[in-house]
Amino acid sequence: MVGLILALDVMDEKKAFEIAEKTAEWINLIKVNYPLVLSAGVDVIKKLSKFKKVIADFKISDIPYTSSLISRMAFENGAFAVICHGFAGSDTLRAVKDVAGEYGGEVYVVTELSSPGGVEFLQKVSNSIAVLAKDIGCDGIIAPATRPERVRELREIVGDLKVICPGVGVQGGRIEDIKELVDYIIVGRSIYLAKDPKKEAKKIYELLK
Amino acid sequence: MVGLILALDVMDEKKAFEIAEKTAEWINLIKVNYPLVLSAGVDVIKKLSKFKKVIADFKISDIPYTSSLISRMAFENGAFAVICHGFAGSDTLRAVKDVAGEYGGEVYVVTELSSPGGVEFLQKVSNSIAVLAKDIGCDGIIAPATRPERVRELREIVGDLKVICPGVGVQGGRIEDIKELVDYIIVGRSIYLAKDPKKEAKKIYELLK
Repeated sequence: MVGLILALDVMDEKKAFEIAEKTAEWINLIKVNYPLVLSAGVDVIKKLSKFKKVIADFKISDIPYTSSLISRMAFENGAFAVICHGFAGSDTLRAVKDVAGEYGGEVYVVTELSSPGGVEFLQKVSNSIAVLAKDIGCDGIIAPATRPERVRELREIVGDLKVICPGVGVQGGRIEDIKELVDYIIVGRSIYLAKDPKKEAKKIYELLK
Repeated sequence: MVGLILALDVMDEKKAFEIAEKTAEWINLIKVNYPLVLSAGVDVIKKLSKFKKVIADFKISDIPYTSSLISRMAFENGAFAVICHGFAGSDTLRAVKDVAGEYGGEVYVVTELSSPGGVEFLQKVSNSIAVLAKDIGCDGIIAPATRPERVRELREIVGDLKVICPGVGVQGGRIEDIKELVDYIIVGRSIYLAKDPKKEAKKIYELLK
């Protein structure tokens, strides 16, 4: 079955723990991004790891030297995986992969953002980015649930690499359109803005069976 | 004359303050990136602002919603400008620009990374990204000192927008090749790894006259 990743993009540490605790039974992984990490401090990754393993969605997209430093911060603070932008180039991706290797960590590569702007520049090169992610030995790619036809093509390119899909729910992507193609979906606002996050997480979990 | 931006990519807050204090006389702005901000906390931006105005080089490259949240964190914590990746798309850029507008802050857009991988995907679209930055009303672009011919072309595209160049020093870019084309250069390791950061900053400052 498809796994559920909770994108915990709240700005308040207490709220983050509350939602993580409530939903833990129905999610597989937690994804954190800069809004929470900048608000709560990077050690929030380690703290959240007691609920589920945490992916640091830092959209790493800098020169190799800086990208190595950022990756190291993520793994040192308890992340089991990082998300990197492929468009930054193969040297950046390799630098991140090397650091991940030191920690036994995983690397996921963004092909296209799920937002409308993802088609403007990223879509032109997203197939090549997927090939690169596979060639370098990354663990998977991020592909947009908002464009199922792209998820299909990207899945064909990466074969047995993991495919993770954001864009379900508030952004308009539909589970039924991508369920057969992906390993994980990422859901954020639909869960953490829900009146009852646990109920919403359970509902989505059931749909993923 | 060309301004000097110190890229303060050290991981230690105390060291960051020490270098900022020592070099303040010879630099125009300070640029911080995630390595320092994740180590020291995001309020390091406000603390460093007492030496010089601070640019948050967060390479913002997420969907518009998340990019807005990240920008807000930067401006709320005292940054006067943020750096955003244009390849993420016009919606992301507009979202960041809107937040900057609320704070009277500035937005600089990466065209190509100065690292070798910057030619793989970014260079194919960097002219279009520069056009977009200008159309949206951003304050300037980031162009690679390591490729002076690209800086020349990007300068022609953006006209009177500010052009900021990283890649001088350790990365191989030479001041004399880009001096006439740019508003600021960014120098990091050549200064903060120097035995005498103040002397090195002064030396570079003199070269920029």
